[in-house]
Amino acid sequence: MTGKTGKEHSGRRRLERLRPLLSQAGAEALLITSLPNIRYLSGFTGSAGLMLVTPQRATLVTDSRYTIQAEDELAGSRVHVDIATKGLLAAMAAILARARGKLRLGFSPTQMTIQQRAALDKAGKGKVLWMDAGGLVERLRAIKDPSELATMKEAALLISRVFEDTLPEIREGVSELELSAEIEYQIKKRGGSGPSFETIVASGNRSALPHARPTPKLLTKKELVVLDQGAILRGYCSDMTRTVFLGRAPDRVRRMYDAVLEAMAAAKAVVRPGITAGVVDQAARHSLARRGFGEFFTHSTGHGLGIEVHEMPRLGKGDTTVLEAGMVITIEPGAYVQGLGGVRIEDDVVVTSGGAADLTDATKEFLEL
Amino acid sequence: MTGKTGKEHSGRRRLERLRPLLSQAGAEALLITSLPNIRYLSGFTGSAGLMLVTPQRATLVTDSRYTIQAEDELAGSRVHVDIATKGLLAAMAAILARARGKLRLGFSPTQMTIQQRAALDKAGKGKVLWMDAGGLVERLRAIKDPSELATMKEAALLISRVFEDTLPEIREGVSELELSAEIEYQIKKRGGSGPSFETIVASGNRSALPHARPTPKLLTKKELVVLDQGAILRGYCSDMTRTVFLGRAPDRVRRMYDAVLEAMAAAKAVVRPGITAGVVDQAARHSLARRGFGEFFTHSTGHGLGIEVHEMPRLGKGDTTVLEAGMVITIEPGAYVQGLGGVRIEDDVVVTSGGAADLTDATKEFLEL
Repeated sequence: MTGKTGKEHSGRRRLERLRPLLSQAGAEALLITSLPNIRYLSGFTGSAGLMLVTPQRATLVTDSRYTIQAEDELAGSRVHVDIATKGLLAAMAAILARARGKLRLGFSPTQMTIQQRAALDKAGKGKVLWMDAGGLVERLRAIKDPSELATMKEAALLISRVFEDTLPEIREGVSELELSAEIEYQIKKRGGSGPSFETIVASGNRSALPHARPTPKLLTKKELVVLDQGAILRGYCSDMTRTVFLGRAPDRVRRMYDAVLEAMAAAKAVVRPGITAGVVDQAARHSLARRGFGEFFTHSTGHGLGIEVHEMPRLGKGDTTVLEAGMVITIEPGAYVQGLGGVRIEDDVVVTSGGAADLTDATKEFLEL
Repeated sequence: MTGKTGKEHSGRRRLERLRPLLSQAGAEALLITSLPNIRYLSGFTGSAGLMLVTPQRATLVTDSRYTIQAEDELAGSRVHVDIATKGLLAAMAAILARARGKLRLGFSPTQMTIQQRAALDKAGKGKVLWMDAGGLVERLRAIKDPSELATMKEAALLISRVFEDTLPEIREGVSELELSAEIEYQIKKRGGSGPSFETIVASGNRSALPHARPTPKLLTKKELVVLDQGAILRGYCSDMTRTVFLGRAPDRVRRMYDAVLEAMAAAKAVVRPGITAGVVDQAARHSLARRGFGEFFTHSTGHGLGIEVHEMPRLGKGDTTVLEAGMVITIEPGAYVQGLGGVRIEDDVVVTSGGAADLTDATKEFLEL
């Protein structure tokens, strides 16, 4: 993650955007327990942290393993570092205990455990009034700034190149696991810090399972191979699926491929600021239905992408989130037919005033290898 | 994970061991929100699930992506599958609502979010009396059964072979990232499903950081290289650290290496059922102190290992957990000296009536490459 853009730490602008949302939610402060949210606001990449944002101050609590790293990553961010000696919760409780009177404290119910809240309540001696303020940072994160978009473009190009590099290895006799190992190796060789999720290589009948994990199964002639892969580059994820055929494909496989590709084009064509995510999903779904594959498209059309591989918005049936310029989303229609196999094609795009702009640039031609 | 051992699904015995603990905790049923715990009890490996265990029945709630997989993985387990159509929490709430009268429901406060509990409370219409029952499944998981031990031995040997295969690549001019990519590639080539954590390759000054992530830094002559790596094999983790020197090591580096190796031997020598985890930590700590490296050993001596890479027990200062036969733990003393570098050596061992039995078998000779 680019904690610093040019001379200014990007966390500063993000905190400034967050604070008005906080008061709109009726909270005086926000307690952040999600590491991706902490990373977004402070640049901190460690594995242990809690963060408190008030109108005047932002504080990261972490432990002594991260003293040097936190100082380095937060330099210029205006986020203070507090090194906990007896646990993060105890240190955070001590900060909260300093509040004068009752504190209306925003938190995310999906990101705080019963134990965390109980520990803070106990130490806080009834000072804290908990306010549901879930999704505030996620809403900010959904709209990428120019430095984030530049990194995400790079991450998408990185995985596009990895796919091309791997093409010669997609052949009879290689196992799904070996191929996934090769892809993840190439991600690191090209400077990615790792895969953004467990790489999927699903061949033959297994290609009809949208969430198949790679197995020792060997690729054989005359089968579909779905490759779903992504790279993390400087803290940002890419996510791309391609489907190839080993040998000459039967007509019905080609028809399925063309239908999925057409659905992707249909979905991309409607992307623009102001429409709802559900409309994009519907465009893909209608397109596949027109070609007779409607019932075989069993998942949603896409999802937001950023520090995490699944972020806001979700592009599912009836989803009412309004798309905005700067959102990065995947478009990934698919069709899964038992006995025939599956096809999924997935690109990352950014929502712009002119529509969907591609980040991914690997070929979507139907490859018969 | 070996959901099935021979003819019998291992989840059955585990559920039988869990039920008495449940009634001891004063709970009539247990709600399980942790996926590793669900995997342990049912064999289910999907990414979405909730489980309810009552004295008579065990039920896994998952979604339609996992219909076939859950049926397959749970065959013979006596765990029923419930496919949620409107979210896992709604499906679980519907099951809870069928209880007659109040239900004393055990749960783990560290593994349940505020949102999960609120949703179940709302749907459960006040039927649920929540009982803190954290750590019950974790306690069972700490003692491995023979099939688990066999898999963990294989996982430890796998990473031992990967380290040996990688030795020729540990040389001047290769980057930490490239080396970590190579290690993770070899893990998959040898049949592992992936690394059990982000592989650490830390060279030169960076070797003095216990939690360093691999960077583009190139390895150079005359420096220490710490390699901390683990493989997941059939759902179980290994975790092994080796430290090598590029070129001929100065005496003080060799002394540090010998001191760490001696500390490992001292720690292993005291391992047996009935002693506390803190005693093992103390043995390593005293040994290093005798050699003048006491202040440079800045973390705990080890941790339990299994489905997760960090499990019960923790082997830290003063830890009172009593070791039992069948526990699998890491022993990983280290010394980190600014300006000189770091040494860490880590093996996985199983606690047996005869003491610590090694799972890891890669050489611990001081390698000058």
